[in-house]
This record gives sequence, structure tokens and C-alpha cells, in this order.
Amino acid sequence: MDKYNLNFKLDEVPKYIQISKHIKKLIDSDFIEDGEKLPSIRKLSDLLGVNNDTIINAYKRLQVEGYAVQKVGSGTYAKRKEISRNFKKDYSDTLKKLSPSILNQYVDFTGETASSEFFPVSTFKMVINEVLDRDGAEALTYQELLGYEGLRNNINKYFWNNKLSTEDVLIVSGAQQGIDIVSKALLNVNDNIIVEKPTYSGALSVFKGRRTNIYEVPMLQDGIDLNQFEKILKKNKIKCFYLMSYFQNPTGMTYSLSKKKEILDMAEYYDFYIIEDDYLSELIYDENIEYKSFKAMDDSDRVIYIKSFSKIFLPGIRIGYLIAPVKFRESIQNSKVNSDISTSSLMQRALSLYIEKGFWREHITSLKDIYANRYKYMEDKIMQILCDKVCFNSPGGGLNFYLQIDSSSKVNSIDLFYKCKESGVLLTPGVLFHKYPKEGEEYFRLGFSQVSNEKIEKGLNIINNMLKSE
Amino acid sequence: MDKYNLNFKLDEVPKYIQISKHIKKLIDSDFIEDGEKLPSIRKLSDLLGVNNDTIINAYKRLQVEGYAVQKVGSGTYAKRKEISRNFKKDYSDTLKKLSPSILNQYVDFTGETASSEFFPVSTFKMVINEVLDRDGAEALTYQELLGYEGLRNNINKYFWNNKLSTEDVLIVSGAQQGIDIVSKALLNVNDNIIVEKPTYSGALSVFKGRRTNIYEVPMLQDGIDLNQFEKILKKNKIKCFYLMSYFQNPTGMTYSLSKKKEILDMAEYYDFYIIEDDYLSELIYDENIEYKSFKAMDDSDRVIYIKSFSKIFLPGIRIGYLIAPVKFRESIQNSKVNSDISTSSLMQRALSLYIEKGFWREHITSLKDIYANRYKYMEDKIMQILCDKVCFNSPGGGLNFYLQIDSSSKVNSIDLFYKCKESGVLLTPGVLFHKYPKEGEEYFRLGFSQVSNEKIEKGLNIINNMLKSE
Repeated sequence: MDKYNLNFKLDEVPKYIQISKHIKKLIDSDFIEDGEKLPSIRKLSDLLGVNNDTIINAYKRLQVEGYAVQKVGSGTYAKRKEISRNFKKDYSDTLKKLSPSILNQYVDFTGETASSEFFPVSTFKMVINEVLDRDGAEALTYQELLGYEGLRNNINKYFWNNKLSTEDVLIVSGAQQGIDIVSKALLNVNDNIIVEKPTYSGALSVFKGRRTNIYEVPMLQDGIDLNQFEKILKKNKIKCFYLMSYFQNPTGMTYSLSKKKEILDMAEYYDFYIIEDDYLSELIYDENIEYKSFKAMDDSDRVIYIKSFSKIFLPGIRIGYLIAPVKFRESIQNSKVNSDISTSSLMQRALSLYIEKGFWREHITSLKDIYANRYKYMEDKIMQILCDKVCFNSPGGGLNFYLQIDSSSKVNSIDLFYKCKESGVLLTPGVLFHKYPKEGEEYFRLGFSQVSNEKIEKGLNIINNMLKSE
Repeated sequence: MDKYNLNFKLDEVPKYIQISKHIKKLIDSDFIEDGEKLPSIRKLSDLLGVNNDTIINAYKRLQVEGYAVQKVGSGTYAKRKEISRNFKKDYSDTLKKLSPSILNQYVDFTGETASSEFFPVSTFKMVINEVLDRDGAEALTYQELLGYEGLRNNINKYFWNNKLSTEDVLIVSGAQQGIDIVSKALLNVNDNIIVEKPTYSGALSVFKGRRTNIYEVPMLQDGIDLNQFEKILKKNKIKCFYLMSYFQNPTGMTYSLSKKKEILDMAEYYDFYIIEDDYLSELIYDENIEYKSFKAMDDSDRVIYIKSFSKIFLPGIRIGYLIAPVKFRESIQNSKVNSDISTSSLMQRALSLYIEKGFWREHITSLKDIYANRYKYMEDKIMQILCDKVCFNSPGGGLNFYLQIDSSSKVNSIDLFYKCKESGVLLTPGVLFHKYPKEGEEYFRLGFSQVSNEKIEKGLNIINNMLKSE
């Protein structure tokens, strides 16, 4: 309780404000952990020698500011803005500091997107020139609010068999923006949201930024644990559930058809919405995996579908799209306008023509071949080199493996990260995908999109040594 | 008070939640106006037959959700998410529905950006091709977190005489994104922010979306009214002041040097930060106006400077940049990453080369000539055609005039909008630039960037008729 003590200032600032500021500082500087229960009102009022109302007001203020959440019948709990922040910062600083030429000397397993070495620059250049010749300055002005109509048409035609209408599609500047604008339109302070555990850190950051209450449900091999999921739904009014339907990041798991159906039924019954992040479903290597998105099965308009083109195509293009339930369209569209008005129109037109001319399909087919082979190679090598030190499930698609360090090894993935870095290997510790620090320490992710076969073997051998040396 | 009545449901939902939901609905559906004082706790508890605590809890909940704000010693006030929403929607729907070919038949005074007819497509095409030949697929991958280094270098060199460091500049996807990411990084629910009155509606929407408390200070000819400004600063802890330093949108007013200095001093004294939206300072026609941004005068790191390239260059390019005080850099940078990861890298590289090769300067010089002439023509014609029906100040730069309808005319600008639309003229009513509905009704904005001299005369004559006909 000591940390709660403070010397009240003799100025006109009311005591409840001084108390709430003090606690805020304790939360921000890690003296109070995220999710930690704050002292009871009586206890704290005794300690500080103030009356109960002062503490009640201080706690209310913390709630308003999103620093605390009250659980009925249980008390008040601290809520931190950004967790495991220090390591997260260290991780991103490490990657940031490495210039492309230095990075080339590393075995870099942190890549999340298709490698630029396979990108058909000359074809894309041709397409851009054709667009500029065809549309002139038009290609560089604002688009319609929903995005370039030609692109929306082609998305409907080539990816949805014309089952949508052109008005259903909203162009966004990548999937990250999709998550951000949906959050701004739908989520307010202290709204409840469920995420997969572990989950994509970029989504976690957005939900934390909105100061929502985040519930995590563990991932199993065919999607989240439905029992735990329903327990939460029964107890709390949930607004949204954020998921990745194929090759979930980081676990690589894919939802079974039956689980999708059950979740859609629950969405209707418990009145929540599904944010489906379909970020990599083009890369299915396992023939037993069928592609059917939540959105395709969504009869009751419960799914906000977000599609990224950046992961598979090229990140620098910054284009994705979103299909929202009718009732949210206006607010999400406003949210897009307030975020960046519109997405680069030249890029939209170029991508549209690229799809229309059949280059997209061609490119994806060749990428899939390349990565299916690399996937197989990586899978074999992990089993060969790391077999007794990790366990993992084969995702059957995507661009990474998620490995659990065997309990016989004493090393956690943060230590592993630092050690491997020293030896020229970069990997992504599991802690980055969790709401609370310390969780996910026994996992790490290896992405193979940027790594040649030769480097894969070299990198895995180094990881093996690091896991052994403990 | 009738509207506050409700029949409590006999279920387990606590009464204070039922009450807060009811009031929320009343606010959302306009039965309670934004800024309207809610009934006192005693009054409402009497009316509903519940005890005081229930109302206190209901009001607290409204506060947490950003639907109410408590003013010390005065009571609780409603806060609406989006004001004058119906007209705003109607306005944007009207513009949205007009296809480019139909829009061509209108006299369109709603334009805010330089016309695409002057855009040097072939030069830009050449630059894009040069970038793709030079950088290959690199031009289409993620950039450094701050944006393409070459562009940041050139911004420093060509716009800041190398007075900055390259690390000071953060590339964003247009000024709107700049406002959005700064808000996400700095502003929380119920934080206090000051804006100019009237102000840019895109900024207002963002601040409302963060559920901040917005204070408005009237614009005078040389910037805001400092007396009113300081009164607010004395009474409230203000976090930010959002302003447009040159040719303020919509008033066209420009800050005097002395006022800039005073505001910067106040920022230090009262501990707030200035968000400077420098959206159009390239187009200065009046020789007496000197260009010196708040940022250039900022000795105590109080200014968050946001620069748009879209207004003057081409909107479809979606690039701007931001210079933030050192203490906010990390959080603003994170906010950018969480918003859309990075800005289109090909566009960044193309713009960088365009600036480097001197095309930027050339383009701006020619644009300035064109628009200075049109500005003069428009100014003359307004005086000639509308002289006895409006009053206005000449901004001395920029792309629009802001006109006040003479009180002898009975028409307000919303009616004027609808009538003019019928007769083929589009204009922007002042209400769009205000926090509260009904305010700004006697003003309208005429942008001349998209209108030829011939059409200017035609359009003004029609407006004249509409103002006369009342």
C-alpha cells in the first residue's frame, strides 16, 4: 500500500484530483500493473486520511480517463495504455536501427510480408503509365468517398464473383487503417471487445488506444476456445470480436467451418459484431483447407470484413478494403474521411488495372508456388534441427511458424531474441502478441518470407545453439 | 422535463444504466441539444422517483461515455458526438451525388484545392518512372518509420533551409491524418481543446470523435480574440489550441506577427500546445503578408506543425508532414504506425524527386500567378455584383472568400445553398465550420480554385438574385 501514499499539496487542486493524478502516474510508470486491483475505498481513505467520497471521486475520474475499470461487485482495477512497452520499444528500435544493407547480413525471421524480390516492378510500372496516359490529372485528384469506383468494381468482380454491390466496398489505406477506422466508428471508452490470445499487436494497440476493455480468449487449433468465449459473452455486453480467419497472426491457426458457423450464430444471439481481418488467405498450401471467409457465411450482417493487399502484394502500396454491415457504413465512412480523407488515387487506379489485366492472379499463383516450397523446406528443417526443443503446429499456409519452447529449456523468448540478435538472427518473441507482459514468453514466431533456404538452415542452427546453451 | 421520463424495465439492468441509456438516446436523436444543461440531480430524481445516487451514477456514466461534461459549480451538460449533422450529411451527399460530368455544368464554389487542370501530369509521370527505374521494388516496400529519408531531407533543405534535422520530420498521409494522429496521441476523453471560431470542419470532427471538450474563440482580422482566449486559459486547463496560421479556413484571416508571439508566450505560461495547420501559405498574393510560421518562431517547443501538400499540389497524392515537440515524438510516431503503418512509399519518393529537381518551386510559382489573377478578378466581381448584400475581408491569399450576408437580407446560408443548387451554383454555408448548429448561418464560403473567370461572374450573378429574391 506504500506506493499509494502521497503528500497533499496545499493548493486549490481538490484532493480527489491529486489522488487520481498520483495513481495515474503509478500506472504509467509501472508501479501499478495493468489489471491490478486498486485498494478498496475504505482502505485507501483510511490510509490517506480523507473521507470515502474523495476516493470514490478519484476512482471515477480514473475511469473517465480510461485508467481504471470498475467491475461490478468486485472493485476497481487499473488499466494501462500500453503494456510490455519497454520490450516492444526495444524490439522495434532494434529493427529500425538496422539499415537495409546491414539487415541483409542477418537471418531475418521477423518479416511479415511477401518479399520485394518477387515483385513485378516492370509490369507495375507499365500499369502506372497506362493509368496516367488514360486518366491524366484525374488519376491524382480525390476519389469518390468510397474509393475509386473502378477498383471497387474489380474487387467485386474478381474476388467476390459479383455477389456484392460496388457500394458495399470501402477502400482503405491498408488493413491497419481498416482496424483503426472501425475502432473509431464503433468503439468508445470502456466498451468491451474480445480478441484472440495471442493476437496481432497492431490491433491490440488500436483497441488500447480507444481505451476499451479487452478480453482475451485462447486460440486452439481450429479457432478460439468457444467455452471460454461464451463464458465471457454471458457475463459481459461485448461489442466486437476481432479475429484473423486464416493463418492467424502469430499462431498460424485457421478457423474450422463449424467453428465459424457457431461464432456467427453467437454474434446474432449475443448481439456483437465480428471484425474479420483476412490478411493472408491467398497463401493456402494445404489442400484440405477450404477458403470461406466469415463474411461469405454471414447471413445476418454481423461481419466487418477487412482485407489487406499489402501483406501479399507490396506493403508500400498501402491499399486494402473493408465491407461493413449496412448499419455501420455511414459512421465507418465518416471515420475514414476524418482519418485521411482518401487513399492515394493513383495507387488505387494502378491496382485496379493490375487486377483487371489478370496480373494479380498471375502474381499470386507464382508467389504461392515459391512460398509453398519454402514453407515445406522450413517445416522439414524445424523438425530436423529444433525437434527436441520446440513444439509447433503446421499452419498449412501463410508466411510463418509459431514455436513453443520446450519446458526443458530454461530460456524465454525475450532472452532468445537478444542472444540470437548477437549471433545475427532476428525473431519475434511471443510477448508482443499479448495484452499482459510476461505472457507468451515461451513462444516465438519465425517468418520465412524474407529468408532464403540457405539462410533458413543457418538461422535455425543458431537458434538451436541458443536454446541448447542454457 | 417530459422527455426525461421513462418506464423502468423490470429486469436486472440497474436503474442508473437505464437512465443513462435513455438520456444517451435523447442526445443522439436531437431531443437534447449539444451543450444543453441536463436537469439538476434533485429535479430528475424527483421526476423519476429514484434517489439522488441513482442520478449521480447515471450522469457519471454519461461522462465516462463522453455524452456529458460536468462543469464545476454549474451542473452537467449534454455533449453530442456530431453536430449539425443532418445538414452536413445533406451537403456532402449533394456533392457526392454529382458525377464529374454533371459537376462541370455547375458553378462549383465548394472547391478547396488547386485545380487539376494545372497539374503537370507529364512531369510527374517522368518523375515516377525515374523513381521506379532507380529504386525498383524498393520504391514499393515499407519505409522507415518516419517516412522516406530522401523526402525528409528535401523537406528540410528546400522548405526549412536545413534548420531542422531529418529526424524532426514525420511524413503523414495528408494534413487530415496529421490532425488525427496528433489527436490520438495527445487528446483523451474530456481533455480541453481550443479552436478558432469558425474552424475547419474536418478538425472539429476529429476532436469530437476523441470526445474532448471544445472551446471556441472568435476569429478577428489578425487572428483569434486574445481576451476571450486568455479568459478560457485562466479558467481551464487547456491541452491544445488548433489553428490555421495563414488564410484560415473558412475566414481567410492571417495571424499577425505580434499575435503569434503573444500566443506562443501564452502557450509557455499556461502550458498548452499549439497545433499549427499550415495548409495554404504558399499562395500569398498580398506583398504585405510575410511568411513566418508559428513553428519558425517557436523557441520553447510548443508547436505541433502540420503541413499539407495536397491542397496546393494534388489531393490524390495524400502526403503531408508533421514536426512535433520532442516530448511527443514517440507517441505521435506510434499513433501514425497504428493508423496506417506508413504512407505510400512510391508517392513519397516521387514527390521527393519532384522537389529535388526544382519542379515543385516552378509549379508553385506558376500556380501563384494564375490564382493571384483569379483572386483579383473574384474580389472585383464580388464588390461589383454583391456589394450591397454581403460584407467581407480580403484575405490577401489562399483560394477562397468568406462572405457575411447583410442583415437586410432575410435568407440564411443554408437556404441560400439549396436555392443556389437549384440554379446550378454550389457554395459552402458557414454552419459547417461551427461546433453548434445554427451558428454561422449568416456566412458562406466561395472557393475559386475550380472556377473560371467566366463562371465566377455567372455564379455571383445567380447568388445575387437569390439574395435579392427574399
